Amino acid sequence: MGLELYLDLLSQPCRAVYIFAKKNGIPFELRTVDLLKGQHHSDDFAQVNPLKKVPALKDGDFTLAESVAILLYLSRKYETPDHWYPQDLQARARVDEYLAWQHTALRTSCTRTLWQKMMFPVFLGQQVPPETLASTLAELDRCLQLFEDKFLKDQDFLAGSHISVADLVAITELMHTLP
Amino acid sequence: MGLELYLDLLSQPCRAVYIFAKKNGIPFELRTVDLLKGQHHSDDFAQVNPLKKVPALKDGDFTLAESVAILLYLSRKYETPDHWYPQDLQARARVDEYLAWQHTALRTSCTRTLWQKMMFPVFLGQQVPPETLASTLAELDRCLQLFEDKFLKDQDFLAGSHISVADLVAITELMHTLP
Repeated sequence: MGLELYLDLLSQPCRAVYIFAKKNGIPFELRTVDLLKGQHHSDDFAQVNPLKKVPALKDGDFTLAESVAILLYLSRKYETPDHWYPQDLQARARVDEYLAWQHTALRTSCTRTLWQKMMFPVFLGQQVPPETLASTLAELDRCLQLFEDKFLKDQDFLAGSHISVADLVAITELMHTLP
Repeated sequence: MGLELYLDLLSQPCRAVYIFAKKNGIPFELRTVDLLKGQHHSDDFAQVNPLKKVPALKDGDFTLAESVAILLYLSRKYETPDHWYPQDLQARARVDEYLAWQHTALRTSCTRTLWQKMMFPVFLGQQVPPETLASTLAELDRCLQLFEDKFLKDQDFLAGSHISVADLVAITELMHTLP
């Protein structure tokens, strides 16, 4: 069995992995894991990813979780064009820096915003106290400001003049929350 | 000016960077940023790291934030022994997987525990509601179980039989919170 990607394209990190694989012509079998049906909690999927999260990768006997690790694994195994994860020491460090930062900053903030503005009130019928939402939106603003001032600056892409995996991680997150 | 590392050794990620640099004989100037004195909020430090967090690195005109990015930068620039960030595709993916996971799992959980068990009640004189602390400790237990079952398993180190940067990131976090 070749490469299998376990994804739900509702999920932002899944879309980053999917776009990366498609754009680079990496052959894979798509294994859809329907989050809304709770398929990520199934025993079968726990064999692939005990963390019970998508995306997950299976490549023969090798399994891998975490979108960032999956993107880097695919870039190395399939030797994708350099700009995705540049060999240049400083450009690569810029990609690593963004990938590390976003976990507890933009991603956390976007996810919290999505839940408080949509998931709780629209899908679960639970109102979010206005002061909680205000605090979440203020934190999102702070993250977006850092995104511009510290990371993107006046460049076309996060690591300079070419697109990298960091941009895929960023754009899927931003498009999801800020339509 | 050569390599400068901006650290406060009270901070777990700073200790991971410090141990890595020392163990590998990487020459650097230690620039202490005293967190308890709020030096990370100074204008001078914001020139090095606009995120106002330690650790931070300055290498000539190049500055870098985020401990994970700093560890990888140092491993590449100083060509440290392979085991720290193995060339082997799958072993490296294991390191990346742990480094990605820990941000919102073990690190978040350990930090929250430390604040609720010590910083709030001992340093700030604020009591934490018992149910809040219970929930935090339950989440920490869940993370520790995943740490053992999914990541460490029956291996000596996170990526197999040799120490990697993932182990440094893990041990500094665990020692800080679980004395």
